[in-house]
Amino acid sequence: MDNPVDSRALDLALDLARRGPLTENPQVGCVVLGPGGEVLGQGWHRGAGTAHAEVAALADAAARGHDLARTTGWSAVVTLEPCRHTGRTGPCTRALLDAGVARVVVGAPDPTPTAGGGAAELRAAGVDVVVLDDPRAHELVRPWARAHRHRRPAVTWKYAATLDGYSAATDGSSRWITGPVARADVHARRAQHDAVLVGTGTALADDPALTVRDASGAPLPQQPLRVVVGLRDLPAGARLLDGSAETVHLRTRDPREALAALWERGVRSVWLEGGPRLAAAFWRAGLVDDVVAHLAPALLGSGRSALGDLGATSIGDALRLQLTGAHVLGGDVVVLARPTDPTPGPVPDQTPSDQQQEA
Amino acid sequence: MDNPVDSRALDLALDLARRGPLTENPQVGCVVLGPGGEVLGQGWHRGAGTAHAEVAALADAAARGHDLARTTGWSAVVTLEPCRHTGRTGPCTRALLDAGVARVVVGAPDPTPTAGGGAAELRAAGVDVVVLDDPRAHELVRPWARAHRHRRPAVTWKYAATLDGYSAATDGSSRWITGPVARADVHARRAQHDAVLVGTGTALADDPALTVRDASGAPLPQQPLRVVVGLRDLPAGARLLDGSAETVHLRTRDPREALAALWERGVRSVWLEGGPRLAAAFWRAGLVDDVVAHLAPALLGSGRSALGDLGATSIGDALRLQLTGAHVLGGDVVVLARPTDPTPGPVPDQTPSDQQQEA
Ligand SMILES: NC(=O)c1ccc[n+]([C@@H]2O[C@H](COP(=O)([O-])OP(=O)(O)OC[C@H]3O[C@@H](n4cnc5c(N)ncnc54)[C@H](OP(=O)(O)O)[C@@H]3O)[C@@H](O)[C@H]2O)c1
Ligand SMILES: NC(=O)c1ccc[n+]([C@@H]2O[C@H](COP(=O)([O-])OP(=O)(O)OC[C@H]3O[C@@H](n4cnc5c(N)ncnc54)[C@H](OP(=O)(O)O)[C@@H]3O)[C@@H](O)[C@H]2O)c1
Repeated sequence: MDNPVDSRALDLALDLARRGPLTENPQVGCVVLGPGGEVLGQGWHRGAGTAHAEVAALADAAARGHDLARTTGWSAVVTLEPCRHTGRTGPCTRALLDAGVARVVVGAPDPTPTAGGGAAELRAAGVDVVVLDDPRAHELVRPWARAHRHRRPAVTWKYAATLDGYSAATDGSSRWITGPVARADVHARRAQHDAVLVGTGTALADDPALTVRDASGAPLPQQPLRVVVGLRDLPAGARLLDGSAETVHLRTRDPREALAALWERGVRSVWLEGGPRLAAAFWRAGLVDDVVAHLAPALLGSGRSALGDLGATSIGDALRLQLTGAHVLGGDVVVLARPTDPTPGPVPDQTPSDQQQEA
Repeated sequence: MDNPVDSRALDLALDLARRGPLTENPQVGCVVLGPGGEVLGQGWHRGAGTAHAEVAALADAAARGHDLARTTGWSAVVTLEPCRHTGRTGPCTRALLDAGVARVVVGAPDPTPTAGGGAAELRAAGVDVVVLDDPRAHELVRPWARAHRHRRPAVTWKYAATLDGYSAATDGSSRWITGPVARADVHARRAQHDAVLVGTGTALADDPALTVRDASGAPLPQQPLRVVVGLRDLPAGARLLDGSAETVHLRTRDPREALAALWERGVRSVWLEGGPRLAAAFWRAGLVDDVVAHLAPALLGSGRSALGDLGATSIGDALRLQLTGAHVLGGDVVVLARPTDPTPGPVPDQTPSDQQQEA
């Protein structure tokens, strides 16, 4: 079943998927392959209300001058099982069938009953369907699936530190720990999320803007919601209140309550920028889905930590994660990790109010 | 000048070189290429008194049944300029010429005047010599060159920590932070060095054996010298005094003095295992050449640091390193880094006593 052409195409589809935002819908990527395995089109989902990956890939193939209706034996390689429900954009199974697909390679089955069943429908229509059950394809939808299962936004904790674990020197200075490439990566990842979150401690100490900007420093047209959590007031002149993006102040110290309020507002993914106390509170409550750590090749020997107290006194109390990646970026190291999910399972059907939003 | 066959062969030669020990001589790797670019032989230097990489690669080609004397147009790709001096093993330039080499590709020129000049000699004999000046090839000899320049052993600081920078929990427990693959990597790297070094603090707290063992746990036939630095006595029953490998107790708190004593004993490379205070003293004295950090995907939130006080209070005081690598190993991340060398330059000729040792 597994063949090198499929698996290379899945690699590409996974890369495409990761370009998409972490919002209402999962990240999905799709590659259209000709009968000889050549790439005819590629697409990814750019967020709720826009074309699904399959439809984007079909459109890309057409834009490149390929007439799929007259091509026999072409395949679609898609990271997630194509949906068969009519959301805002119509079912992908229908789009693939109408375009004349012969074969569909699926990275991972869809965990939602409403959207799921696409593979069976394609098979019933005579399409050759291969489900690869690829671990990376499963990983790709996991934070999204977990968020929908628990009806709270997916949370990515981001921090920057020296190789010996300090996010700032003892005097509090931290500009710059990491280099410009790592900082640009933080901006790009921040922009993929619905909301950016900090505690009042960070808001008061750093007066951060928390907007997303392009390479030239100009703000992007769409900004994540800026969220401050904590009881203290922000001063009137705070940058978070400058109107350059929407800001919400959640006057609570309960991370669960904060996430519930954000879910109600339609926030599906949160980029948790700290500080140490708020981050520790999220970890203690088991509410972090992903870690993005930027480590600079520098040593301080002393300083301030990125993470507050977790209540661990012995090595057995350590919070164990699994690595999802580590690579050099600019002159820094990026480490990606996530807690092992103790309870994976199906994602419940979306509620009528969610359907409303999607319809 | 640069061609893909040469650069692939240099990649291989660099990998081969890194298998060698960090002792009296630099790490060197060599690949013999046939006229069509096919690999005919490969070799690396296994330590003072054994064949140089070029000779090892020629022997490997012969062992694989290739008759180089009857092959025209073969090349040798070697990470470091072949030596032209008569040490324990005879000059490599001679060995290559006698074998009928047509072309020699050099990763980096030799920084020692005695050994240097090999490229010129080969050219004078009609060999086509290409010097790539590859940064990785330069990096490979840098700690060795620095050690010889300063007449002190090259020092590699090794530590293991959680992603948030703790080498032990607050109660001191640290078994195990990293996984078995990372621990095996530590053993393999330790075995490449002439000596393993710890402070009396670690010796007294952990009673470590500091021997190198194979995968089954059996001690290797050749053990690095075990070195303890500090004024306090070790108890009679200490594992370091069990005779399973030679141990030296250097009763000093001056890292420079400790390294000078080790150089006098013929130690050319030191694997510095800690603890935090001794490591900080080496860093403050500017005596660390390389860092090998094993980071576990785990969070503690509090605990003990791998590195003691460096006197840094502001981010501007941070010790800046350059990354030489970062990759996933087992379930952990290995980060390799080194301080940028402010004063690279030629390595002085070896003294008569060194020559003696080499002859
Ligand atoms: N390098 C990095 O990656 C990075 C990132 C961010 C921040 N920082 C640094 O972190 C420092 C601020 O540290 P911090 O710990 O005070 O910042 P923080 O975690 O942003 O804010 C802590 C405050 O958040 C509120 N809060 C809300 N929910 C909480 C909960 N469940 N548990 C505890 N507190 C909760 C509390 O304020 P109320 O009293 O108002 O409720 C608390 O004092 C700054 O110096 C900043 O530069 C570093
Ligand atoms: N996870 C890891 O990577 C790792 C590795 C090693 C150790 N550790 C932990 O580190 C702890 C021991 O910490 P430590 O700092 O006491 O250990 P250490 O650095 O091994 O020993 C410190 C002692 O070394 C002597 N010393 C020699 N030269 C010195 C200098 N220039 N400056 C300061 N001291 C010098 C001093 O002892 P005298 O008074 O005898 O002169 C000093 O008390 C143990 O719990 C061990 O488990 C962790």
